[in-house]
Amino acid sequence: MRLTILGCYSATPRSLTNPTSQVLEIKNHIFLIDCGEGTQVQLRKSKVKFSRIKHIFISHLHGDHFFGLPGLISTFRLLGREKELHVYGPKGIKEAITLLLKLGDSWTNYPLHFHELNSKETELVFEDESVTVSTIPLDHRVYTNGFLFREKLAQRNLDINAVKQYKIDKSQFNNIKAGKDIVLEDGEIVKNELLTFDPPKPKSYAFCSDTAYKESIIPLIKNADLLYHESTFLESEKHLAPKTKHSTALEAASIAKKANVGQLILGHYSTRYKSIELFKEEAKAVFENVDLADDGAIFDF
Amino acid sequence: MRLTILGCYSATPRSLTNPTSQVLEIKNHIFLIDCGEGTQVQLRKSKVKFSRIKHIFISHLHGDHFFGLPGLISTFRLLGREKELHVYGPKGIKEAITLLLKLGDSWTNYPLHFHELNSKETELVFEDESVTVSTIPLDHRVYTNGFLFREKLAQRNLDINAVKQYKIDKSQFNNIKAGKDIVLEDGEIVKNELLTFDPPKPKSYAFCSDTAYKESIIPLIKNADLLYHESTFLESEKHLAPKTKHSTALEAASIAKKANVGQLILGHYSTRYKSIELFKEEAKAVFENVDLADDGAIFDF
Repeated sequence: MRLTILGCYSATPRSLTNPTSQVLEIKNHIFLIDCGEGTQVQLRKSKVKFSRIKHIFISHLHGDHFFGLPGLISTFRLLGREKELHVYGPKGIKEAITLLLKLGDSWTNYPLHFHELNSKETELVFEDESVTVSTIPLDHRVYTNGFLFREKLAQRNLDINAVKQYKIDKSQFNNIKAGKDIVLEDGEIVKNELLTFDPPKPKSYAFCSDTAYKESIIPLIKNADLLYHESTFLESEKHLAPKTKHSTALEAASIAKKANVGQLILGHYSTRYKSIELFKEEAKAVFENVDLADDGAIFDF
Repeated sequence: MRLTILGCYSATPRSLTNPTSQVLEIKNHIFLIDCGEGTQVQLRKSKVKFSRIKHIFISHLHGDHFFGLPGLISTFRLLGREKELHVYGPKGIKEAITLLLKLGDSWTNYPLHFHELNSKETELVFEDESVTVSTIPLDHRVYTNGFLFREKLAQRNLDINAVKQYKIDKSQFNNIKAGKDIVLEDGEIVKNELLTFDPPKPKSYAFCSDTAYKESIIPLIKNADLLYHESTFLESEKHLAPKTKHSTALEAASIAKKANVGQLILGHYSTRYKSIELFKEEAKAVFENVDLADDGAIFDF
């Protein structure tokens, strides 16, 4: 899995910082997560092929997570896109996008599907043979979801030497990878674990922005390999967090620790801070394996 | 007057080029003209003070002229703006912006006034003591207006030496500047032209983007000091112009010549062209005083 941060600063776009947007490469997918103004330029800078994006997940309808979407959808049309596009986001997103396209008399000539969300409980929003995506209900000023991206357990890996040794025919390989025991011609049963290696442990990525400190998300993101958790404020401004329904670096770290995640990435920094290094320092007091998102940063895991 | 080009390329934002937006400084005003995605970042790069923008003129509701507006309006709110903002644009613009603000539960805490346009004839949309703004109906795929910005004739300039010579009291200065003759104590009438100089000739700027070649705009922009006219295509692609309702560089130059403007600025270049120099060459064949808009360029006139 590879996570590319296109933008990770809160509030307003600036000359050198961008509002929230990320690209997650997982199995064969390129998922776009949130789409602040300027996302399509950031996508170009990161050399992401536009046509490979088929699914866009929008956490909430504040401008810094969403105002780049109408332009991206229009650009797809100008580029001659034919492949369908799926957009997952809060109820209302369809009305907003379709109104803007109608006013510009610029309907897409590719299929555009909206999957509107309004549940306060977690729900599975995408699934195929290799990946699931489910919502992480967050606590913000408007209806907001994070998203949990999870690989499925792959098939078992064939132990090619063992298979040769037992002289097993190729026609059985799919059964073996699916975990079945094999009956040899002489009636001997060979246990699957003698013929295979464990598949790689499935990985998972939890995206949580924007939210006040919310312990009820912990069971949903438990043991995730990577957690992106917003940290708008430092301790010096922690009094602003509950009021604006955002989190501090320390709170993000506390969630990471309680959820036992592998690594924490901080982001959604208030633009009041000159440097973001203090976010890492404050989080480290609670959770060791923490890193800072920054525009253009790439995390492989 | 000073015109700053924030963006002047057609269609999609790219790493190094921006969609249409301009700032016109005229008398005490800072007018924003069109607002493609990324305009607020371009405003910051050009060091325009956000709070000085009180009037925004939108030509039409295609994304490359409009999708930066929701974010800019939101940013004004985040910056604590209190001054009112006036937005002039096609009917539908109010519904679009208010829906986006409603979905984000982000109403502005400053007065936001929409002046919706739907007339196919030119109309005066703004006037104060020093400036008028009127529409220039254009011919595009959706309802579109250009805008003509025109200084009013200023008061006459006092000839301070002449006034001293005639021993005229200060209390008369406003009458003199307003063009009145003066009666001296001995009954002698002093003609105004002996006491004043002509005020500077009022200047005007015509913004025309996007449009097919449309001769009926010529009387509206006649003798303008500066004309920005779109030129999406070169001669090699002139067959695309009528179909997409855009103009070529040659057509823009032809309009400039027939309207007898002082200077022509080209822009809204199709992003298919590697270099924009050919636009100037092709226009020069018809109209000599032509220059190229480019992002960040400044024109004083």
